Amino acid sequence: MRVRMDVEYDGTNYCGWQRQDNGTSVQQVIEDAVEKLSGQRVAVHGAGRTDAGVHALCMTCHFDTGTSIPPERLGYALNFLLPEDVRVKETRRADESFHARFDARAKWYRYRILMHPQGSALFRRMCWHVPYGLDTKRMQSALPDLLGTHDYGAFEASGGSAKHTVRTVHRAQLTSSGDWLTLDIVGDAFLYNMVRIIAGTLVDIGRGKCDANAFARMIQTKDRLQGGVTAPAHGLMLMRVFYDEHGDIREKWAQMMDGKPW
Amino acid sequence: MRVRMDVEYDGTNYCGWQRQDNGTSVQQVIEDAVEKLSGQRVAVHGAGRTDAGVHALCMTCHFDTGTSIPPERLGYALNFLLPEDVRVKETRRADESFHARFDARAKWYRYRILMHPQGSALFRRMCWHVPYGLDTKRMQSALPDLLGTHDYGAFEASGGSAKHTVRTVHRAQLTSSGDWLTLDIVGDAFLYNMVRIIAGTLVDIGRGKCDANAFARMIQTKDRLQGGVTAPAHGLMLMRVFYDEHGDIREKWAQMMDGKPW
Repeated sequence: MRVRMDVEYDGTNYCGWQRQDNGTSVQQVIEDAVEKLSGQRVAVHGAGRTDAGVHALCMTCHFDTGTSIPPERLGYALNFLLPEDVRVKETRRADESFHARFDARAKWYRYRILMHPQGSALFRRMCWHVPYGLDTKRMQSALPDLLGTHDYGAFEASGGSAKHTVRTVHRAQLTSSGDWLTLDIVGDAFLYNMVRIIAGTLVDIGRGKCDANAFARMIQTKDRLQGGVTAPAHGLMLMRVFYDEHGDIREKWAQMMDGKPW
Repeated sequence: MRVRMDVEYDGTNYCGWQRQDNGTSVQQVIEDAVEKLSGQRVAVHGAGRTDAGVHALCMTCHFDTGTSIPPERLGYALNFLLPEDVRVKETRRADESFHARFDARAKWYRYRILMHPQGSALFRRMCWHVPYGLDTKRMQSALPDLLGTHDYGAFEASGGSAKHTVRTVHRAQLTSSGDWLTLDIVGDAFLYNMVRIIAGTLVDIGRGKCDANAFARMIQTKDRLQGGVTAPAHGLMLMRVFYDEHGDIREKWAQMMDGKPW
């Protein structure tokens, strides 16, 4: 049977989602746990990759298994075998045609910025500490330029493997609460480092190192050098992957914005 | 000069605030950092103690030093010397009569509960994972019994050293957001493990192991056995210590409720 699974992970101690030779990946520890449980080595397919240090509140993935454990009980069993920084949140039987990556219609990422002279002890692994003031109104005014379908070639780090660089950004929202800035961005798919380049450019807009038209200019010129820095990985979190079942993505996203602890 | 300092810490790797023989305390690493900086060994006085594993978003403390570094710059200097799970958030010169503990008028603690079949990878060190459903309405209905000035003898763990057990609870509020429950409690002072006993009893009320009058009965009988379990340390966070400068505590607390990331 095909199993669909939602996984939360703290990316701090991993080389990213995808299996690699030079470190432990989230995918690998999940595949190891499935093997221990079922006796079979299987490939676990994620909805996408996340870089080293990037977190996921909800990464969706799938795998095929012949285990006799009921699919909705698999999460409990796997969590006994997984390290505590990787938690299976939900498992269920999926249609044989379901594919976590190919069926994904959109992804929601969140980037957190702490704007304070000193850093945070408690949230140090989950935010970018920016010790200078930022003009949040200016940052907010720049975000609408990102919306829509554009060639985002200027938003891809070297090393990206995308065949084409046209993407659609559905939502891009910056909210401010006390010392914290939260960037929420929903798009159909993202290029390599795209959200981190957006977050970094946004901070450079906020501190005056880029002007408020930087996003528009990046899209127009396809020139990475028109943008700002690439924000560090540990401020980034994959919040959710959207599938057909979620219906209208913007509507669903607005509902999901409630009840997120972070 | 006397320096007043606000400190945030992740309590995971500490034996608590107070210096102890059997582990590293937050107080000790701060005193070590002050000594490295100033060449003098000083006592750093906190507003209170926190147990092993308990966190603080803002613990206020004070110490005397002869350093020539301007008081408002001390935080930057100390943060270079402190481990990253302890961050000085603010330092300033205080009146010689200021005492972080004796002058504290109230403290605000927050206890976080994750109500979900599976735990959290990202917030595992900062919440109590409760894998069963809880009746939050019932829990909320029990809280008003805690308000006011009472003998809280039933809310003290053995080992407490308080001379008397009368305390005043100003606010006790449970808010629910998605899978998360947040207990906020403000009081003039708290007995040893008092907030954890309140949180544990509240959860037992929510799951039906205690009835909704448990708090009232504990206050009336002064019998610890009328209460529920003691909630684990890592769900607890000292949010703020209030002093005369804060004016009306309930009003100030309501303002401060905004902008807290957690």
